[in-house]
Amino acid sequence: MQSLLRQYKTQIEHQLPTYIEPLQAPQTMKEAMLYSLQAGGKRIRPLLLLATLHTFRKPVDIGMSIACALEMIHTYSLIHDDLPSMDNDDLRRGKPTNHKVFGEANAILAGDALLTYAFQVIADDRAISPEIKVRLIAELARAAGPEGMVGGQVADLEGEGKTISLQQLEYIHRHKTGKLLQYSVRAGAILGEATEQQLALLTAFADHLGLAFQIRDDILDIEGDEQKIGKKVRSDIDNGKSTYPSLLTLNGAKRKLRDHMREARTLLDKAEIDASLLHYICDVIETRDH
Amino acid sequence: MQSLLRQYKTQIEHQLPTYIEPLQAPQTMKEAMLYSLQAGGKRIRPLLLLATLHTFRKPVDIGMSIACALEMIHTYSLIHDDLPSMDNDDLRRGKPTNHKVFGEANAILAGDALLTYAFQVIADDRAISPEIKVRLIAELARAAGPEGMVGGQVADLEGEGKTISLQQLEYIHRHKTGKLLQYSVRAGAILGEATEQQLALLTAFADHLGLAFQIRDDILDIEGDEQKIGKKVRSDIDNGKSTYPSLLTLNGAKRKLRDHMREARTLLDKAEIDASLLHYICDVIETRDH
Repeated sequence: MQSLLRQYKTQIEHQLPTYIEPLQAPQTMKEAMLYSLQAGGKRIRPLLLLATLHTFRKPVDIGMSIACALEMIHTYSLIHDDLPSMDNDDLRRGKPTNHKVFGEANAILAGDALLTYAFQVIADDRAISPEIKVRLIAELARAAGPEGMVGGQVADLEGEGKTISLQQLEYIHRHKTGKLLQYSVRAGAILGEATEQQLALLTAFADHLGLAFQIRDDILDIEGDEQKIGKKVRSDIDNGKSTYPSLLTLNGAKRKLRDHMREARTLLDKAEIDASLLHYICDVIETRDH
Repeated sequence: MQSLLRQYKTQIEHQLPTYIEPLQAPQTMKEAMLYSLQAGGKRIRPLLLLATLHTFRKPVDIGMSIACALEMIHTYSLIHDDLPSMDNDDLRRGKPTNHKVFGEANAILAGDALLTYAFQVIADDRAISPEIKVRLIAELARAAGPEGMVGGQVADLEGEGKTISLQQLEYIHRHKTGKLLQYSVRAGAILGEATEQQLALLTAFADHLGLAFQIRDDILDIEGDEQKIGKKVRSDIDNGKSTYPSLLTLNGAKRKLRDHMREARTLLDKAEIDASLLHYICDVIETRDH
């Protein structure tokens, strides 16, 4: 399991720069795009996509363009989130954030470029039929746009310094991180020719997985090791952000994490697929230390 | 002619908010998106698209989603260009810029949302075939992304405070504004089922039109009326930007404008279409005072 995921990760990290290097574009921008794309990270979204494809016994190559587009969109969102007017972070994965290296204007534009280019990468994939590409593009825009990730980020900023309800916190995470994680699984299932019922089960699975992922993030912000995470811990508290532990206590958050993981695994079992790789990812997400 | 374009403009301005209002998204973000979408402007990109469709005797309705997506992308680029770390403009079309009203973080996110949503709007259009939608999405991403508009903006920022060559200036404008204007015409021609030869002629036409548009902009920055333009004149000089007049003298720039317009009109005549509406747009662009 672990070696398969490691192999996928290597493939993704090998592919990503090959999309950027041939671009006829200003060198500074290409460097800024590559800097953040190559800054490491868990690559959880592309891995979820490829693992789902594997689950449907499809060659993972057919999902590589979508996997890289997903990582480009995730990366753009980190670049913009780190900006001084947003979270104002100097470090990301232990390295200076994009605007610290390239300046604020170039960081904003590198983000814009990655976001736009992600759609081009999908639209240009000749191995996927136009019908499927249109579906994958529409769903990606929905997951990343105003009704998805960007909407979640706006709600997150609005919630800063306020005590929000658990319901509002779930809205934020379902949108800010959840929708794109869910898309990763859905895109894999769509390319894997899942039945409508399997797609519905996997969508619900990914919803629980996404919330669990975020709860683990909140817990790590309290219990985590700064060296391993690559950024300052207790930043949520410093930024006055409501988190699962702040609303439910640390033990309450841990219980919630277990509940979501149990639900996720139950849904996976119902989908009648050999989902051992996705089960393994559940284990990793539940116990990750960075 | 004029009344037809005015009618198209009304249709576009009626359509634009109908895409935003039903969104299930934070109210602040919808307001920020609408604020800039409804801030007026010439709507030159959607008008070029609809006028090209009209030229091919197609109902303009079939291009409305693309026209609105184009305006969303243009609007996002203005929001981001106006940011303090970029051009740092307080006024746009006589109104406070987006970040002045909603704050910098919300302005960045409203731009991100408009950019992402533009692709969703096209992908969701059920009246266009998947093959054509994929082509229109790929070309739009190319025109707006690292090899197009965003690349041009990076080059523009890099050129600030330096004397650049005419060649570099043309690179900037061909990318920063030209590619999206060209796309407007190409998208109309593709939806209008132009022949490959007509598409090639119209593409070259739009290249000249785009450069002419920018030269007129540079001239207006010197000769224009602040009230009519809705922003400060002489801002290029204040920002230390090279312009056509600064490289060619004001008369040289005017001559260049006429040359490009003549080339544009010649190409239009070769395309064997009743292009009277596009000819009229040429007149408007050549003589516009805002």
